[in-house]
Amino acid sequence: MRLSRYFLPVLKENPSEAQIVSHRLMLRAGLIKQSAAGIYSWLPMGFKILRKLENIVHEEQARAGHLAMLMPTIQSADLWHESGRYDAFGDEMLRIKDRGGREMLFTPTAEELITDIFRSHVSSYKDLPLTMYQIQWKFRDEVRPRFGVMRGREFLMKDGYNFDLTKEDALHAYNRHLVSYLRTYERMGLQAIPMRADSGAMGGDDTHEFLVLAETGESEVFYDSAVTDLSFGDREIDYSSVEDCAAVMEEFTTKYARTDETHDEALFNEVPEERRRTARGIEVGQIFYFGTKYSEAMGATVQGPDGKNQPVHMGSHGIGVSRLLGAIIEASHDDKGIIWPEGVTPFHAGIVNLKQGDAEADAACEALYSALTLMGLEPLYDDRNERAGGKFASMDLVGLPWRITVGPRGLKNGVVELTSRRTGESEEMPPEAAVQKLGQIYAGIA
Amino acid sequence: MRLSRYFLPVLKENPSEAQIVSHRLMLRAGLIKQSAAGIYSWLPMGFKILRKLENIVHEEQARAGHLAMLMPTIQSADLWHESGRYDAFGDEMLRIKDRGGREMLFTPTAEELITDIFRSHVSSYKDLPLTMYQIQWKFRDEVRPRFGVMRGREFLMKDGYNFDLTKEDALHAYNRHLVSYLRTYERMGLQAIPMRADSGAMGGDDTHEFLVLAETGESEVFYDSAVTDLSFGDREIDYSSVEDCAAVMEEFTTKYARTDETHDEALFNEVPEERRRTARGIEVGQIFYFGTKYSEAMGATVQGPDGKNQPVHMGSHGIGVSRLLGAIIEASHDDKGIIWPEGVTPFHAGIVNLKQGDAEADAACEALYSALTLMGLEPLYDDRNERAGGKFASMDLVGLPWRITVGPRGLKNGVVELTSRRTGESEEMPPEAAVQKLGQIYAGIA
Repeated sequence: MRLSRYFLPVLKENPSEAQIVSHRLMLRAGLIKQSAAGIYSWLPMGFKILRKLENIVHEEQARAGHLAMLMPTIQSADLWHESGRYDAFGDEMLRIKDRGGREMLFTPTAEELITDIFRSHVSSYKDLPLTMYQIQWKFRDEVRPRFGVMRGREFLMKDGYNFDLTKEDALHAYNRHLVSYLRTYERMGLQAIPMRADSGAMGGDDTHEFLVLAETGESEVFYDSAVTDLSFGDREIDYSSVEDCAAVMEEFTTKYARTDETHDEALFNEVPEERRRTARGIEVGQIFYFGTKYSEAMGATVQGPDGKNQPVHMGSHGIGVSRLLGAIIEASHDDKGIIWPEGVTPFHAGIVNLKQGDAEADAACEALYSALTLMGLEPLYDDRNERAGGKFASMDLVGLPWRITVGPRGLKNGVVELTSRRTGESEEMPPEAAVQKLGQIYAGIA
Repeated sequence: MRLSRYFLPVLKENPSEAQIVSHRLMLRAGLIKQSAAGIYSWLPMGFKILRKLENIVHEEQARAGHLAMLMPTIQSADLWHESGRYDAFGDEMLRIKDRGGREMLFTPTAEELITDIFRSHVSSYKDLPLTMYQIQWKFRDEVRPRFGVMRGREFLMKDGYNFDLTKEDALHAYNRHLVSYLRTYERMGLQAIPMRADSGAMGGDDTHEFLVLAETGESEVFYDSAVTDLSFGDREIDYSSVEDCAAVMEEFTTKYARTDETHDEALFNEVPEERRRTARGIEVGQIFYFGTKYSEAMGATVQGPDGKNQPVHMGSHGIGVSRLLGAIIEASHDDKGIIWPEGVTPFHAGIVNLKQGDAEADAACEALYSALTLMGLEPLYDDRNERAGGKFASMDLVGLPWRITVGPRGLKNGVVELTSRRTGESEEMPPEAAVQKLGQIYAGIA
């Protein structure tokens, strides 16, 4: 993409309404624009990142054997009366009357609707196990929406639901989700720590939240510092193996890590003192096992191998996709701007032409642009008639992980400059070498 | 995908509520499930097709140089008061009060919001031309939602908006959209004829609708049969060339083709009698040029080269993405079920194992599955313990364009059967030849 043809309205000033760094940087880098309290438009670069996050979620869900589908944003209140949650949900639910006077709502979560789909079509244990998920916009009418997309009212969420014959099967689904979530967050460059949590309005016994450590996190967290040494890495896993998934669950959840909701001071004190940490965290996902709560209330039963009908065991699992943008920025920025991890960067590299209009510099930039594109990478070429300082500042602000700087002086020596946004280190090399190096960096990512 | 692990709830009976064939087949093939009047869930196979359609739209929009972004579904009523459309829109607009009592609405279209984004960030002609679009869920509270996704209340729409300095530039944008829409529909296997239309509530001078001929279409259309001989084909086009785009516009819109809204009997009678046709059509898209209607009302001006502020010229352009599924089915089915065009099929080929459990047949199916997958194709393998008749009926119903049938008898002779869903013709060939042939069929499509 050529910047002259893009819509990237970067702001020079810090917007006064933004209290935390991710909100400030998302506005300044032209990723979002507020349209109403807690409701945002996603400008082209913001949308591009959002879509990358979506794709990572879809790929990892498919890998775990889960089926993508989509439920509507507007639902009838009927099913919610059936489950008993219509009144329980309170003012956060956006209630609507349609032109016929029927009670509708903008769905904040979809346990009821998916359970209805299940009971309409599935009647035998032979069709289990089944896990379906969607990535869909949700609405929660927060009293005080704030922190940009971190606590917005309209937000994009991946929500998945498993249906299993037995509690054991459902707990395998729970573990399988934990594994796939660990992979998902790591691909996004995030360390998200599973912490024992409280099930709240969702109901149920088992639940873990995934938290990214950040000063601006809304939750206070307590953990054994050994949990931050864990990483899933690129190990292969057989998602159908109960043992393999259980082993990962044990590895990642045995050490003490809890939010203030479930914090147990006595247990915490058993952690060696030098490893006890208190910090703040941003919640980026949560998994639940809630047994037969919804299936009993709504009559979602299957005929078991013994010929008897029994309610299915269920769980649900969520990833806050739009808030992930904020979480990644909170975890990865400096005073110049955002630093995108390679896995989610909107463009793979920036090309800065130090002397737009200089025939040789222009040609070198065009050649780099073509070579990177041919390789399957997407460069963002700053081809505007701006001074170098302004171009550098914009590139640093929007946070592409790599920048190639092209100028007449370097070209005389046959080199361009490749700069890492994260370390700030620059290296001079021939243009072909820069292309090759970027190819290596993004191998298996882009 | 193995059918035993998929969620494809096909129905044996025709659902009584479905009046037209696409609605009936979408329900029977397990693509959608109604959740409320005019509101549907997209089950895994339906969602897969929807996503393919989305991707084609994204690719063709990118090719034309348009920028993807996303606006929220819930908007404040303020901007709509500013444009004067809040009252004009009537009962089809879903109006909502949030917990603070503020007037909100579920957006039926986004001229107001995109104009607000534009005026907040763009002030110079140097940032033009600019075209941004989104693919987002819309809501129109129809009095009588019907025909499944063809006339639903919640529907997925691509809506794009161009901002140009002059009327001439905006008319180029108009033509550019016509070209990109022709390409888009053809990739989906559809012939969509641009017809002069009425601008209705949108306002403005120039507008064309794109109509797919089908008996169940909601519009009566009148056309010169020569328009159905036109096809865009795989010609290359330079979207930045005013002349090239204008030439396509002229080629595709000069011959008589109008909906009943703009039909002119006298003009129609100038068409040679043997080429005069009256038929019905399904509207799958529309393009508008409406000049400065919104930019003047909302103060979206730029400084021109002469230093003077002037309102920008705008247009908007829509594709009914979710209704396209219905339109494709109306145009492409037989009495056994759906016939998906290769460009949008949810799976590229079905594999039917005539004797599940037979070691040789199972192994041959697995080998085909792997070979197709390696080639980048997605097979749907019916690995259930069902009789051949039932497997064939399901495959015909869901409408994959190609089926490979594998049985012990054929394997003894070293062959499988490759069957075209459209023609019903079958050919015996070695498994490797079937894989190779599918590779050729999908080259450049999948």
